[in-house]
Amino acid sequence: MNVAIVGGTGYGAVELLRFLYNHPHVTVVKIISHSNSGTSFSEVYPHLVNIIDMEMDSFDIDQLAEEVELVFFATPSNVSKNYIPGLIDKGVKCIDLSGDFRLRDGEQYQHYYGEEMAAADYIVKAVYGLSEINKEAIKDALLVANPGCYPTATTLGLIPVLSHNLAEYQHIIIDAKTGTTGAGRSLSQGFHFSEMQENFKAYKLGVHKHIPEIEQVLSDTANEAIQVTFTPHVVPMTRGIMSTIYVDLKEKQSTKELINLYKEFYQDKPFVRIREEGVIPQTKEVYASNFCDIGLYADERTGKLIIVSVIDNLVKGASGQAIQNMNIMNGWDETTGINQLPIYP
Amino acid sequence: MNVAIVGGTGYGAVELLRFLYNHPHVTVVKIISHSNSGTSFSEVYPHLVNIIDMEMDSFDIDQLAEEVELVFFATPSNVSKNYIPGLIDKGVKCIDLSGDFRLRDGEQYQHYYGEEMAAADYIVKAVYGLSEINKEAIKDALLVANPGCYPTATTLGLIPVLSHNLAEYQHIIIDAKTGTTGAGRSLSQGFHFSEMQENFKAYKLGVHKHIPEIEQVLSDTANEAIQVTFTPHVVPMTRGIMSTIYVDLKEKQSTKELINLYKEFYQDKPFVRIREEGVIPQTKEVYASNFCDIGLYADERTGKLIIVSVIDNLVKGASGQAIQNMNIMNGWDETTGINQLPIYP
Amino acid sequence: MNVAIVGGTGYGAVELLRFLYNHPHVTVVKIISHSNSGTSFSEVYPHLVNIIDMEMDSFDIDQLAEEVELVFFATPSNVSKNYIPGLIDKGVKCIDLSGDFRLRDGEQYQHYYGEEMAAADYIVKAVYGLSEINKEAIKDALLVANPGCYPTATTLGLIPVLSHNLAEYQHIIIDAKTGTTGAGRSLSQGFHFSEMQENFKAYKLGVHKHIPEIEQVLSDTANEAIQVTFTPHVVPMTRGIMSTIYVDLKEKQSTKELINLYKEFYQDKPFVRIREEGVIPQTKEVYASNFCDIGLYADERTGKLIIVSVIDNLVKGASGQAIQNMNIMNGWDETTGINQLPIYP
Amino acid sequence: MNVAIVGGTGYGAVELLRFLYNHPHVTVVKIISHSNSGTSFSEVYPHLVNIIDMEMDSFDIDQLAEEVELVFFATPSNVSKNYIPGLIDKGVKCIDLSGDFRLRDGEQYQHYYGEEMAAADYIVKAVYGLSEINKEAIKDALLVANPGCYPTATTLGLIPVLSHNLAEYQHIIIDAKTGTTGAGRSLSQGFHFSEMQENFKAYKLGVHKHIPEIEQVLSDTANEAIQVTFTPHVVPMTRGIMSTIYVDLKEKQSTKELINLYKEFYQDKPFVRIREEGVIPQTKEVYASNFCDIGLYADERTGKLIIVSVIDNLVKGASGQAIQNMNIMNGWDETTGINQLPIYP
Repeated sequence: MNVAIVGGTGYGAVELLRFLYNHPHVTVVKIISHSNSGTSFSEVYPHLVNIIDMEMDSFDIDQLAEEVELVFFATPSNVSKNYIPGLIDKGVKCIDLSGDFRLRDGEQYQHYYGEEMAAADYIVKAVYGLSEINKEAIKDALLVANPGCYPTATTLGLIPVLSHNLAEYQHIIIDAKTGTTGAGRSLSQGFHFSEMQENFKAYKLGVHKHIPEIEQVLSDTANEAIQVTFTPHVVPMTRGIMSTIYVDLKEKQSTKELINLYKEFYQDKPFVRIREEGVIPQTKEVYASNFCDIGLYADERTGKLIIVSVIDNLVKGASGQAIQNMNIMNGWDETTGINQLPIYP
Repeated sequence: MNVAIVGGTGYGAVELLRFLYNHPHVTVVKIISHSNSGTSFSEVYPHLVNIIDMEMDSFDIDQLAEEVELVFFATPSNVSKNYIPGLIDKGVKCIDLSGDFRLRDGEQYQHYYGEEMAAADYIVKAVYGLSEINKEAIKDALLVANPGCYPTATTLGLIPVLSHNLAEYQHIIIDAKTGTTGAGRSLSQGFHFSEMQENFKAYKLGVHKHIPEIEQVLSDTANEAIQVTFTPHVVPMTRGIMSTIYVDLKEKQSTKELINLYKEFYQDKPFVRIREEGVIPQTKEVYASNFCDIGLYADERTGKLIIVSVIDNLVKGASGQAIQNMNIMNGWDETTGINQLPIYP
Repeated sequence: MNVAIVGGTGYGAVELLRFLYNHPHVTVVKIISHSNSGTSFSEVYPHLVNIIDMEMDSFDIDQLAEEVELVFFATPSNVSKNYIPGLIDKGVKCIDLSGDFRLRDGEQYQHYYGEEMAAADYIVKAVYGLSEINKEAIKDALLVANPGCYPTATTLGLIPVLSHNLAEYQHIIIDAKTGTTGAGRSLSQGFHFSEMQENFKAYKLGVHKHIPEIEQVLSDTANEAIQVTFTPHVVPMTRGIMSTIYVDLKEKQSTKELINLYKEFYQDKPFVRIREEGVIPQTKEVYASNFCDIGLYADERTGKLIIVSVIDNLVKGASGQAIQNMNIMNGWDETTGINQLPIYP
Repeated sequence: MNVAIVGGTGYGAVELLRFLYNHPHVTVVKIISHSNSGTSFSEVYPHLVNIIDMEMDSFDIDQLAEEVELVFFATPSNVSKNYIPGLIDKGVKCIDLSGDFRLRDGEQYQHYYGEEMAAADYIVKAVYGLSEINKEAIKDALLVANPGCYPTATTLGLIPVLSHNLAEYQHIIIDAKTGTTGAGRSLSQGFHFSEMQENFKAYKLGVHKHIPEIEQVLSDTANEAIQVTFTPHVVPMTRGIMSTIYVDLKEKQSTKELINLYKEFYQDKPFVRIREEGVIPQTKEVYASNFCDIGLYADERTGKLIIVSVIDNLVKGASGQAIQNMNIMNGWDETTGINQLPIYP
């Protein structure tokens, strides 16, 4: 199957290429980059010299529709909404790694993304691509809205306990930490090596785009409007997200019971690993892989359940899950091309 | 004034020496190390070659009582309690950087520290050395129990809002992050560079020694027993602590109002800096200095106040505050010898 | 084909497992660890939980000979020499990632490794596994002495110019830098995160084990005894080696001419990439991959050729090249199972 | 004494401020920044909030001449040459941290700096501020050309052996490594945290500005034109330079003899520390301090002397040495204000 990638020079694209290079059923025939059209890919990313030297192209919808069956959008916010409707109308499947088609509420989109939402006709066609939860819907999707990195780690951590109605829906606190690739490739003073090294910082308190996305998923799970407190932080490392999540248990549950519940919930999900009692996953344990590892601790003193969920933000939090969704859409084994083990150390 | 340091080869001692080297009123005449007695200090720490080459000694209470007026204990848990009573009885002032004299409740000490607490007669003599809060008591103290690193960052962040009775006392959540020096100099697989680099992890959920210490300070502040949920994490960096603290506001308060309240509370405290609205302090902004910087965000959607408090764990969280306390005990300006600016970048 | 790995808990073993997990022709049926026999592999390396949970075994030569066709030794120095002869006698092929069978000169071995060399009968059977150079001999080898990390980067960088007789054989200077995984998994103060972070250091000047290995390869190339000056350093990063090599050109050569010569020399070698004029490879550009990238600069002012050669020390410098050699020994495409792209960023 | 700093928002300026803040004889009354005039200093560097909040000014020569006795220039190349002559003419002393007044040869300046050199009248007035070597000349200087970071580490390492005529003057190889602050505060893709982390790279082979500076100093020492091979690299850490230097000894010398010679050479120099035999200094051992530490190894096999010299590039390689020079110019103890110990760990 021939595919294209739009947004060729971001980290999302380069990770898609890493996995698709060895994918048995897929060939990347086009890399689209507005700003680097005409440039060889390996000129921008010299680690791929002699391997992916193809020239990047500008966006041409007719050519794409003719040459590829599926397009990945690894673009900044407010870009894909202008291109995806046209492609879908021509029958080209799309997987959007950006947030343009994730939210259903236009006002929230406007508030957090600063622009008008995509046309409602296309929003309703978009399937939210949280692979472990929405597999059935993804199978038939024309358009997959691939989840954000924080929402992936967070909602996979929360859905089991919320869907079993064991936790209070309100007062959920999500203290999240990401590696620097979460901020992308664009330069800024705060991500200059000299200033990010030996530094840890919180950012965008109360205004991060992923708040409404997390709330939408959790509210769907609970059938009740859920509001969360979400604080993202940056860790001086390249990859990895940890969401440390605090919820109030409705009744006393032991850590052991909850672990069993989570294991059952994810029993046939190859990319979710529930850790044993007393073990909390670390970000490095999923490095460069598509796993989401979850550890649990029920604090009997305070009645809180602490959920620790880790992913690689660029893999399960972006490109890996996008390929997992592509596999599901095509009826392939969902691990195809993304079953590499974590890199350690 | 002549002083001695016990626990000479830990990071606490080396930071004490860094500051005391240029302190105008103090000379370090003895460095005590059980395991390295007879070894030159600079053999263990070559960065001080030609500067602090003195041999380390073993502990000799009579010699100490004769030669020094004050002793810093930078020892592991359950060590200083065996030595401090004897020194105090001989009129030697002590500042204990370990936790041996911080808790008043013997059962809690036994539970979290795994041994019996120091004799009650000496526990009552110990003044908890949170300099900004207990200055008056510290002035006359013979024995100062220097606060732990997490408790320093956390309680300085919480005391203003709790003491003004603006927040609920329960359901306080403290999501804390430390650099690796928090774990000290002893080797372990988890702090081997190859495995700590590009890694972020949570540890000791629900069982960390600093839980009862934080609760004791907050309960004293509130005049009511407070229980907190405290989750420590390790960041792949050497120094720095951030406590991200979540409390429920009793009534709506704007971020601006709360910032003003904090500024007033700490108005004559040279080492606490309250940041302006929209600014959250980063750990690097207090690197190698004795500052505690605090940022606030009142989330109107969820009614939570988010407090972000940062310190250098080895300075304000240990050796710097110990010197600040020594200054207070001696009637010197509390910034003497520790007024170095943060190192940046 | 069934294989075993001896030295199960080192970084070499864990990288072998990463690549072999997806190798189409190979199954790892045994992991041998003296110190951890009886322990589940994923207990030592939790990043492989649910994936490689098999118990580690102790070494049993008869069982191995029965169950596997090939054994990888990822053991410390002076271990494999005690086991490999017995296995070879039973017809089991061996690939030794340690240095036990690399040197031909027993005195040098004694000097640098501190013990007596393996029996001469087996030394002569060992083929030095520098895949790009010794491919023909590797094809028929029973025992491959897999090259050291520094020798791989260094000799791949030097052989083209030396074999064309364009450079002086003496006064070669190799200034080499490695990530911390080069020092393995054993704990030491110098690799404690707090002391390695923000640190750069030289070590083992004039006494590193890889000196005689580099000299042996270069002397073979030149048909003349070559002595080199070799200075290894440690970089505060996990993976990667750079050898910066200085040789005197016999006659003036342009950078361009030399690049062409190198490109021709390595034209059919899929894992060696020669960079264009003006481009010097960086360690991150080969991260987690089996590539060796080489950049050249002929300094017209001083008549020196500067060769910069980078590899991932754990891949091309150890486990990746071991698998490349296994592929060659078995007549498979040499890239099988190790054609993953570098991880970036 | 009142001083001013020009180039207020670079790392050089911020380090000057860190040291001058506690300097007993100096007050910084003006910070000049072309691009940030009118902005509060702590707005650019929030780690100094409440401490250095003064507004930055634009350059006004008359005002400066009136208000200050000495001006530090911490500006990029090709800036200070336009301002310093005017200030000197008005009797204001200047210390230039940039390279504008370091070279005597106008052609070389043009070649490496890309512009015409400063007027010859002023070049002759400039004293090269290598404090340990040129102390007498610095005492009376109106204008000090503060040495570059690499030249400081390199020439302090080479001068003793060259001045004693024990080494060949040619074929000197300098393999140098710097932390990222060496590249300054300006943003570039190569210093984006995600791409610099876990990366090690060489750059500017054969064309670095510090080549002619090193050669000028060494040629002055030897009274003979010396050409060096110099290869700079970047280490993924913030601070620190190591120069690993290779020279041919004229006659056999033991490491011990050479160490004694170096110790004697630097015997009354408080900031140069010569390490004992078998000990090689590490960059972290001089972190944030003004020390230059030197280790030696005479390789008997190859006749090479390997010199390892480390500094903190922002301190002894820039701002610390500038203050050392200011102290010398004013007849103060040369350690005044810069006698802080290295930060460790």
